[in-house]
Amino acid sequence: MTTKLRIVPLGGLGEIGKNMTVFEYGGDLLIIDAGIMFPENDMLGIDTIIPDYEYVKSRKDRILAVLITHGHEDHVGALPHLMRDIDAPIYATRLTVGLIEGKLRQAKLLHEVELKTFEAGDVLHFGPFMVEPFHVAHSIPDCVGFGITTPVGLVVHTGDYKFDHTPADDWPPDFAKLAEFSGRGVLALLADSTNADKPGWTPSETVVAAGFDEVFRKAQGRIIVATFASLISRIQQVADTAVRYGRKLAITGRSMRENTKIARDLGYLNIPNDLLIDVSDTVKMPPSKVAIMATGAQGEPSAVLGRLAHGRHQHLSIQAGDTVIFSAHAIPGNEEMVHRTINRLFQRGANVLYDTIAKVHVSGHASQEEMKLLINLIQPKFLVPVHGELRHLAQHAKIGRELGIPAPNIAVVENGTPLEFTADSLEILPRLPGGYVFVDGASVGDIGWPVVRDRDKLAQSGFFFAVINTSDSGQMAGKPEFITRGFVDSKGAGELFAGAEETIARVLNSSKEQRGNGLEKRIEGALSRYLYDETRRRPIVHAVLRQV
Amino acid sequence: MTTKLRIVPLGGLGEIGKNMTVFEYGGDLLIIDAGIMFPENDMLGIDTIIPDYEYVKSRKDRILAVLITHGHEDHVGALPHLMRDIDAPIYATRLTVGLIEGKLRQAKLLHEVELKTFEAGDVLHFGPFMVEPFHVAHSIPDCVGFGITTPVGLVVHTGDYKFDHTPADDWPPDFAKLAEFSGRGVLALLADSTNADKPGWTPSETVVAAGFDEVFRKAQGRIIVATFASLISRIQQVADTAVRYGRKLAITGRSMRENTKIARDLGYLNIPNDLLIDVSDTVKMPPSKVAIMATGAQGEPSAVLGRLAHGRHQHLSIQAGDTVIFSAHAIPGNEEMVHRTINRLFQRGANVLYDTIAKVHVSGHASQEEMKLLINLIQPKFLVPVHGELRHLAQHAKIGRELGIPAPNIAVVENGTPLEFTADSLEILPRLPGGYVFVDGASVGDIGWPVVRDRDKLAQSGFFFAVINTSDSGQMAGKPEFITRGFVDSKGAGELFAGAEETIARVLNSSKEQRGNGLEKRIEGALSRYLYDETRRRPIVHAVLRQV
Repeated sequence: MTTKLRIVPLGGLGEIGKNMTVFEYGGDLLIIDAGIMFPENDMLGIDTIIPDYEYVKSRKDRILAVLITHGHEDHVGALPHLMRDIDAPIYATRLTVGLIEGKLRQAKLLHEVELKTFEAGDVLHFGPFMVEPFHVAHSIPDCVGFGITTPVGLVVHTGDYKFDHTPADDWPPDFAKLAEFSGRGVLALLADSTNADKPGWTPSETVVAAGFDEVFRKAQGRIIVATFASLISRIQQVADTAVRYGRKLAITGRSMRENTKIARDLGYLNIPNDLLIDVSDTVKMPPSKVAIMATGAQGEPSAVLGRLAHGRHQHLSIQAGDTVIFSAHAIPGNEEMVHRTINRLFQRGANVLYDTIAKVHVSGHASQEEMKLLINLIQPKFLVPVHGELRHLAQHAKIGRELGIPAPNIAVVENGTPLEFTADSLEILPRLPGGYVFVDGASVGDIGWPVVRDRDKLAQSGFFFAVINTSDSGQMAGKPEFITRGFVDSKGAGELFAGAEETIARVLNSSKEQRGNGLEKRIEGALSRYLYDETRRRPIVHAVLRQV
Repeated sequence: MTTKLRIVPLGGLGEIGKNMTVFEYGGDLLIIDAGIMFPENDMLGIDTIIPDYEYVKSRKDRILAVLITHGHEDHVGALPHLMRDIDAPIYATRLTVGLIEGKLRQAKLLHEVELKTFEAGDVLHFGPFMVEPFHVAHSIPDCVGFGITTPVGLVVHTGDYKFDHTPADDWPPDFAKLAEFSGRGVLALLADSTNADKPGWTPSETVVAAGFDEVFRKAQGRIIVATFASLISRIQQVADTAVRYGRKLAITGRSMRENTKIARDLGYLNIPNDLLIDVSDTVKMPPSKVAIMATGAQGEPSAVLGRLAHGRHQHLSIQAGDTVIFSAHAIPGNEEMVHRTINRLFQRGANVLYDTIAKVHVSGHASQEEMKLLINLIQPKFLVPVHGELRHLAQHAKIGRELGIPAPNIAVVENGTPLEFTADSLEILPRLPGGYVFVDGASVGDIGWPVVRDRDKLAQSGFFFAVINTSDSGQMAGKPEFITRGFVDSKGAGELFAGAEETIARVLNSSKEQRGNGLEKRIEGALSRYLYDETRRRPIVHAVLRQV
């Protein structure tokens, strides 16, 4: 058993130390966050991705707690999976607990799991660890980072943060606590790198309030604001602006309605009852009296905005004079869908505002100058950039070096790489096997890259299936049956099929002596070559031989 | 036959009036550009997209000429298709002709097509049209727009442009010509809208020269610069910087080598012979003496940079100390692949520079202030924003209104929408059917959305194929054969297959009376339901019944 502090970020190639991080000392474990990733465009058919947490499963008897920084999907979305496999209490702030309850209820795990609430400023003790959650500003309320005092020193983990002096909930980050940590001496800082390639300071949330105000002041028709369902402070800002300009507010989209209900019940959203109306009532009202909050800011076709863009919403249809606000930034990989949705809304006559042309969104993450402030406040001995792709971590490390942290004291590592600390040393261990797990329908981890690669082949050129009857003598009996999807338009494929039949006959004629599985393989080979020559495409080809 | 001037932008939902535009008067046609689009992420398996040019095919006897603005793929890439279907001369500047020759040679069309060279400043006459090409600055040399004098007035078509006073080839745009057009009175302006949501001015190409200089001055190891194969001015800048810092230059990637050869032969690239070395020679040289130009700045896995990122290049492998420059901006839809390539290069030890963190790329398109300058220079009666998605056109139109062009004189339309002009009127006609054509392997237009939708289904969940033998009595004879790809990992699927067999047996038992095609459909339905219940996935299911 080691007496070093071990920190292991878990997950895949994407963002590092984002979805799950393990703190381990003397065999005891704390888990920070349990989130999901979204599949990239070439991870075909995959619903979500969760970290491969074999490391914690194999140490499940020694897990002291799961600590959650905030209620976003990339920090809590994997809890329904994780809590089936381990037995430990979850600790989070009040709003975050509310959001997690909804998740666990849906997964029928609510009564199996111990859910504990803490407040920023509390001091929690778990075996060798003392944990001090501290308030940070981000794009969801009740968000914390953790100061974790271990036998080898104090480690500060920021979670997602920005230094917003005027956040939407009037609760700025706890600078005093950070200064206090600094005074005690900080061994290591694990800090959010998301915007490490953005110079300057991230604008305050109040910039968005001003942006909304301008839009509401000018717009004559309906105003539809789309954002993330979890961006609760943005919902507050829209509600405030709607009150100011005498508009009623309808909240649409299942997830946004649920989050709004939880946040209102817990007092994190201050929306008067008489402000809210049902979306079906908006159609009877003068357009200038209507504001609507909607999901779909990432261009998801089945969310409210996607349905509006395609003219498929149950109650609403876009009309000339509508103003649509995208109050979100496209997540990498979603740009195309977002742009297409914007174009379709323009096509239907809406005026569409988005972050490059109007001040309707700001990031929830610190930019370079905030990162510098944090490092200078905390004065850590070691810096571990986390929360970002490798390229962001590299920029964050550069900032750290510029501020005087020696290069060997900065660890830019990939997920799965254990870091071992003593009071004055940092060692980077070899990366563990594993990484991430695909969730696809009911399958968690059964589907890997081989299946996804087959899907890619099918996505490129479809399949071509031949069912062939042969006689005793090995000749073709009757016509072969061809079944093909995603390969050719079968209307014009008569000639292609005739050639495929000839190809099969040729193989059968030249192979009278040889039977068995090898013959099917030879037919498949000949068909593949024939089909490629004719079409320059490579479908997945299967041949089934039946002697009749 | 109309005596109005008709202008029709052709193409799909993407950029408008980018790939092909038709000018028509009294039945005579001019075609401007013939380019390709790249498929979006959900156009599975499609290689490229070309405009549906049925409109010009059905008028092929009256096509006077095909005029090309510049040599980029989105303006010339469809020529090998178009020139198979029509018979008209192509007119372009000298470098553009050189690039087109390569294309036509590859398509075995070089000797079928009349290719004519003009220079900026020439005056060309085609039936009722007088065409005056004028020089513009963009990211490829020898780039023009057209002033087209028609019986109803003068129309100015910018092509792709920016107002760069200090371009890499020292040939700034022809402001005097634009002023002269203005003096004559301009009926309509068709202008590039690509960056209509970017405030300010697009920086000059010299900014990139300074950016390169800084990187070359500091770098100790090899420098690898990736950009578009057609970005010839960027190649010139890298060559100049390499000379200045005593590095040899290797040019890698087939398309970049070809374009470099054409541009050097025609005098558009000034690279001394002794600067160039073969990439295989770079491995023997001190890293500080080596610069390499490479393809793959869009993250394409099979281009040079993609192969380097994956450790699969024949001659080169990334080593610590290498500096890799992405001298390009990710085309929407490519961001994920670009970021992944950057991350992998960091993983292999390279220092990677890209446009958000270093001045290594500028856009080739005008920003808002340039658009304003153009409109104020030209003073057109009518404004037709082109070259951009609908959202860009909408911003460009807003700029036009702000500069005093009356809203009814601005036409924001989609591709396929004919505009009819008289000397003092503009009418927008109903949109024509058609739009774009998928090119997939040898197929041009045979594959449409139904096939792509099948590919999408296969990409989501693969296929499940059951070949079932039945006896005379309608019972299953032997075990059914299951063939599946992209659906489950077949290793762990034994139980699933057993259940599928039971499902089939149940249908056969309950259907003894009914035979024929309906029975296969019932089996497919039962299998689909069974597989969905078990896996929450929906593969394409086929059943083939054989009586043995």
